[in-house]
Amino acid sequence: MWVSSLMRRLLYVLLFAFGASSWADAPVAIAVHGGAGTIDQSSMTAEERAAYRAALGAALQAGHTRLLQGQSSLDAVVAAVTYLEDSPLFNAGIGAVLTWEGRHELDASIMSGADLNAGAVAGVTTVKNPIRLARAVMEQSVHVMLAGQGAERFAQGLGFDRVDNTIFTTPRRLQGLEEMKAEAAAQARDSLSQPRTPHKWGTVGAVALDQAGNLAAATSTGGMTGKRWGRIGDSPVIGAGTYADNRSCAVSATGHGEYFIRYNVAADICARVRYERATIAEAGQAVLFDELLPNGGTGGVIIMDPRGNIAMPFNTEGMYRGSIDIRGRLSIGIHADAEPGD
Amino acid sequence: MWVSSLMRRLLYVLLFAFGASSWADAPVAIAVHGGAGTIDQSSMTAEERAAYRAALGAALQAGHTRLLQGQSSLDAVVAAVTYLEDSPLFNAGIGAVLTWEGRHELDASIMSGADLNAGAVAGVTTVKNPIRLARAVMEQSVHVMLAGQGAERFAQGLGFDRVDNTIFTTPRRLQGLEEMKAEAAAQARDSLSQPRTPHKWGTVGAVALDQAGNLAAATSTGGMTGKRWGRIGDSPVIGAGTYADNRSCAVSATGHGEYFIRYNVAADICARVRYERATIAEAGQAVLFDELLPNGGTGGVIIMDPRGNIAMPFNTEGMYRGSIDIRGRLSIGIHADAEPGD
Repeated sequence: MWVSSLMRRLLYVLLFAFGASSWADAPVAIAVHGGAGTIDQSSMTAEERAAYRAALGAALQAGHTRLLQGQSSLDAVVAAVTYLEDSPLFNAGIGAVLTWEGRHELDASIMSGADLNAGAVAGVTTVKNPIRLARAVMEQSVHVMLAGQGAERFAQGLGFDRVDNTIFTTPRRLQGLEEMKAEAAAQARDSLSQPRTPHKWGTVGAVALDQAGNLAAATSTGGMTGKRWGRIGDSPVIGAGTYADNRSCAVSATGHGEYFIRYNVAADICARVRYERATIAEAGQAVLFDELLPNGGTGGVIIMDPRGNIAMPFNTEGMYRGSIDIRGRLSIGIHADAEPGD
Repeated sequence: MWVSSLMRRLLYVLLFAFGASSWADAPVAIAVHGGAGTIDQSSMTAEERAAYRAALGAALQAGHTRLLQGQSSLDAVVAAVTYLEDSPLFNAGIGAVLTWEGRHELDASIMSGADLNAGAVAGVTTVKNPIRLARAVMEQSVHVMLAGQGAERFAQGLGFDRVDNTIFTTPRRLQGLEEMKAEAAAQARDSLSQPRTPHKWGTVGAVALDQAGNLAAATSTGGMTGKRWGRIGDSPVIGAGTYADNRSCAVSATGHGEYFIRYNVAADICARVRYERATIAEAGQAVLFDELLPNGGTGGVIIMDPRGNIAMPFNTEGMYRGSIDIRGRLSIGIHADAEPGD
């Protein structure tokens, strides 16, 4: 007994020493997205382009720094998504689109690939960073998904700062709602339907691999401009907008949420990797171009596998996206061709 | 041109004649569940047992009659689930469990295997049959998932009858909430956690195959006794509690919802059938016993494939369940061994 106890301690010491040294060399990687859709290349000024690229780069750095420090992939995706929520450029947190009633209802979710823990919030209105609340649901409640005022009471119980709903409002989104309502009136549809004209699918998200070899995924959004009736899109739906499993991959999606729920997009990509032994590039391609596109579903995903490989397929004109790969190479893209980062 | 047009018409006539005759012989099947969990065999009286069996049998007949009449699998699962929602025996509609605040917040979802259309509602309080509202979301809105007061406004817009929330209350569920609160107080946990003692996972659901060869799945629930903060379980989450795809199978789940969301249970079973070419029995067994059970996830599922094969695995002591297979054979079970129906 005494010998076996000593042996066990020795083993721990060796494991720790080897673990620490191999962790120092262990690959880390991160990818982010800031929405996909009809991003008109010609109408975008050089300044706007630079602003988006700078924000995506800063979000990547926020997450990557933590990974290099040995923090978890959960810490990294929360840091990256928090940055994007705080930026007025993207449809999440500050800068979120407006509902039909002129409010902001925010959705977010997070998942840990090591243990398949997950947390999600839907329709929150007074929490500045919904992704942090989603993480609190995962780590500090026995539930996975909380909605509406109930989620706000949960946030209050944990001492989350509450903010006024108007802090999320930007002039651009007020204009977006006005345009959308004008369009709806012009189409003279009945009050129970909505214009089907394509809009930009704004959502932000991140996937990351940490030194311990664990994957994580996180997604946050303000949803669709002019959404009504407490509509929940794919972003807070585990399996649709977000999924992570160390046995296959981590995925964060952006797109026409209803299609992403019906086609179970994030989890289906992971299922193809796990059961068909597809690469993440093959799985992402198949789901976006063979499943979604022929049926009218548009959007994109960012995918990372346990070796830190990255795929960022989209079936729209563009997707705001960026990554820092296992070799530390930064890449940021908006339209079809990604360019090296600054 | 004229000949080809005539040929085409002739083809249509032949197709119609053959179609009609083959449809008359086309197999139909239906399965239902009424929840899984620790169903104590010894404490159940013969009368209680008979009441459950009768209700499950009546729900099956309600759906099966429609299938024999040539109605769709969507019609059949809605008819079966509506019957179970209206029965005070099950945790859905009338007889639903109470939230921490002593109210009923009802969740439901439905999916069509032919086109992967889906509809879901979460946290509705004044709609008598949430499964009908979920179908309306699928068929009469551009959305998939509506929550809370927004879903109620949608229902009102469609002219759904509204009922007082108290019509769902039964003495048994009032007692259940009291017991749960007493337990929570005894455990003297802090206000942000909940007792983890096992409770019965009440949910109702149905899967069906119609004469046209289309699968459908539907699920409805009152959720967990004493749930708080707008908790959403797996029942309204497409991919978790409900999934249907003619290329693989239809699934309705009942169990500890948080696990069923994290493990993407309904869609994962279909993914294994589609990508691993597993049978529905193999896929259900793997997800319930290899994925869920070792990680603490308990519950059960009903599964149907496009040939009308049925599997109803559960990793709990019992699951209220029943089926009418493609040969018209009725089977109803509560504990491990299913018995022939009356």
